Amino acid sequence: MTTPLSASSERIARRLAVLEQFTEAARPYTRRAFTPLYSEARTWLAQEMESVGLSVALDAGANLIGTRASQEDTHGALMMGSHIDTVVGGGRFDGIAGVIAALEVAEVLHENSVPLRHPFKVVDFLSEEPSDYGASCVGSRALAGTLTQSMLAATNSDGESLADAVKRMGGEPQSLIAPLMQPRDIAGFLELHIEQGPVLETAKSPIGIVEGIVGIDRYRLTVLGRAAHAGTTPMSLRDDALVTATQIVTLVAEKARAWSRDKHFVATIGQFNVFPNGANVVPGRVEMMLEARALTNAQVQQFFSELRDELAQIIPEEKLSFEKVSEAAAVQSDPHIVAALKYACDQSGYTFQQMASGAGHDAMQVANLAPVSMIFIPCRAGVSHHPDEFAELEDITAGANVLLQTVLKLDEELS
Amino acid sequence: MTTPLSASSERIARRLAVLEQFTEAARPYTRRAFTPLYSEARTWLAQEMESVGLSVALDAGANLIGTRASQEDTHGALMMGSHIDTVVGGGRFDGIAGVIAALEVAEVLHENSVPLRHPFKVVDFLSEEPSDYGASCVGSRALAGTLTQSMLAATNSDGESLADAVKRMGGEPQSLIAPLMQPRDIAGFLELHIEQGPVLETAKSPIGIVEGIVGIDRYRLTVLGRAAHAGTTPMSLRDDALVTATQIVTLVAEKARAWSRDKHFVATIGQFNVFPNGANVVPGRVEMMLEARALTNAQVQQFFSELRDELAQIIPEEKLSFEKVSEAAAVQSDPHIVAALKYACDQSGYTFQQMASGAGHDAMQVANLAPVSMIFIPCRAGVSHHPDEFAELEDITAGANVLLQTVLKLDEELS
Repeated sequence: MTTPLSASSERIARRLAVLEQFTEAARPYTRRAFTPLYSEARTWLAQEMESVGLSVALDAGANLIGTRASQEDTHGALMMGSHIDTVVGGGRFDGIAGVIAALEVAEVLHENSVPLRHPFKVVDFLSEEPSDYGASCVGSRALAGTLTQSMLAATNSDGESLADAVKRMGGEPQSLIAPLMQPRDIAGFLELHIEQGPVLETAKSPIGIVEGIVGIDRYRLTVLGRAAHAGTTPMSLRDDALVTATQIVTLVAEKARAWSRDKHFVATIGQFNVFPNGANVVPGRVEMMLEARALTNAQVQQFFSELRDELAQIIPEEKLSFEKVSEAAAVQSDPHIVAALKYACDQSGYTFQQMASGAGHDAMQVANLAPVSMIFIPCRAGVSHHPDEFAELEDITAGANVLLQTVLKLDEELS
Repeated sequence: MTTPLSASSERIARRLAVLEQFTEAARPYTRRAFTPLYSEARTWLAQEMESVGLSVALDAGANLIGTRASQEDTHGALMMGSHIDTVVGGGRFDGIAGVIAALEVAEVLHENSVPLRHPFKVVDFLSEEPSDYGASCVGSRALAGTLTQSMLAATNSDGESLADAVKRMGGEPQSLIAPLMQPRDIAGFLELHIEQGPVLETAKSPIGIVEGIVGIDRYRLTVLGRAAHAGTTPMSLRDDALVTATQIVTLVAEKARAWSRDKHFVATIGQFNVFPNGANVVPGRVEMMLEARALTNAQVQQFFSELRDELAQIIPEEKLSFEKVSEAAAVQSDPHIVAALKYACDQSGYTFQQMASGAGHDAMQVANLAPVSMIFIPCRAGVSHHPDEFAELEDITAGANVLLQTVLKLDEELS
């Protein structure tokens, strides 16, 4: 081809403008999974998929998948997509940009009749955001076989189980006891997503190539002091749990800042509750949630191990307890896909940052089955999960072009 | 007299044992003001007052007052007492010990037919604890004329106003627009109270002579940061309100400890709330309540002034705001009464500590009318407002003896 293929910002803009209309009127931009509004939006999306030559089907996890047939029968699919559900008050780009960009790649391939050796799939995963039934990444978990029976049995406030809700959306919950695709079915999965952070905007870079999705360990820390009357207890006889707890906050912040100088690392105390929390009572107990995220779980564990040793030097053992609340495994991007993404950026003339995804995404679940990577595009002021969430059309289009060139590159290379 | 008069621990024990029976069965030891249980206890108390020769009446503030006539007509009363209402889950000694000890003083005077130049009064103030209508120290405020119309108009959860509740208890709320007694009516007021703190127990001293009741200023501090996604916001781009707030907690604790080395001083951050308080959100705002207490309001003001100057050096102005929520004036004990208390301790052979009251008491209100002081007795582990609240009979008896000797001394001296 002499004229390079390229994505159309007009089409991307049109589709974004249509999709943002599917919102609760009183709470823009809200399109919760499993609602009639969500189903209406997916009906429109299915039509759009068909209009660009994809054959559309729901899988057993109620993932909406549009497929373009391949020229050869022996390859797994090149797959891309994200999700179109939102949190309450959600946003017009989180997930959505990834689905619309994938659709644009499909349209460019379709209008130019580009032959591909691999099947090409666009996917809208069911319910990526934390659902009213508890679980997040419902559809991508279903695909990868990581949706547990207890997740499926959990109910929303109306008493409907997630299994029944998946069925209501067109899925087959009874089939969700094993992965819905096999590793051989997917040659590679790509997800474009807004960064939901300030790194790309700060660096003035349109593209982030995601080297991995962080692992997360989360601990509940309980600090014990002795509640006492604030008027009658002299300073010298106090055991103030808040004063003790501030030593932890300070140490965590200092240590995390030091760690973050030479690697992707963040640690956060986001929840912090003081008991009994009365104006005239010396705090007797503080409970806080501390999480750390890094590109390998070993780093996360090392952080907590060092932190506990350092805290043991300054806070007596009986005054501080650690309880692990959750852990999430880190996911590495596939080096071959990352190389193709870099090549695509270079070919398209876009500067890029190599970076980590600090948040979970559908790609994290798909990684259980297949090689994955992601690209990030900037979002204004790092704001996400908010009506003000905004990404520039130019950046979404750049992302779609990178996806397109990456698909072409991978299609050449992957067997 | 050759045999010195002395209080009877048996009678004190008997009265404490009776009074603790007037409790909500399900929540010992709860005897809330304005309840039928409280009225039953006061009926018993009035009978006890009469049995020791006091003439009993309710004043317009529904304070239960037993009066012993004097030999001379020209003197104000020597008055003592406290309160018998409790907080929920309250205790058997807070307030109660002061009323029972005063009753014991009356009984010793009565059984020995001790002639006094001054009238002698035992008072059970109405509703000292924070009432269901908002105000605390309802009866002593009424006596001193510090019960405002807005306090009287406040309603409980049933919609009854405090004025109506006072009326229901036998008071005359329409008369509560001026003090119920004049300065000339009270020569001196004494209140015995459990310390509600650990100082006397730590010092192994049975008696605390209260030099004054602290003044209290209370401020709401708001620390602003920038809420952000804990996964996607690098450490270097964070403005974590919790991390900033810990600087305040640390500075307040260090500064208060330093101040407390050479004077009575405490400062406390008891309420501390983080927003949005999500495990995966960098804190965007912290609100805390900071109070400081000292024996003079000037010291309290000086502390806040210095603190604000020091905080201004480390936290930018726009990130921290101070809002004064309340202030309470310090009360000085009357030096003449304090001297009499010391004399009484020396006469009775009790060691004593001179100390501040870090909490408010009825005596603080009476101080608006008359010379006052208080004595404290130890309570176990400083625990109060709790079913485990405990004071030794020996210490209550010691306190009653000090009150008795002080009354005899003041009766000689005061004109």
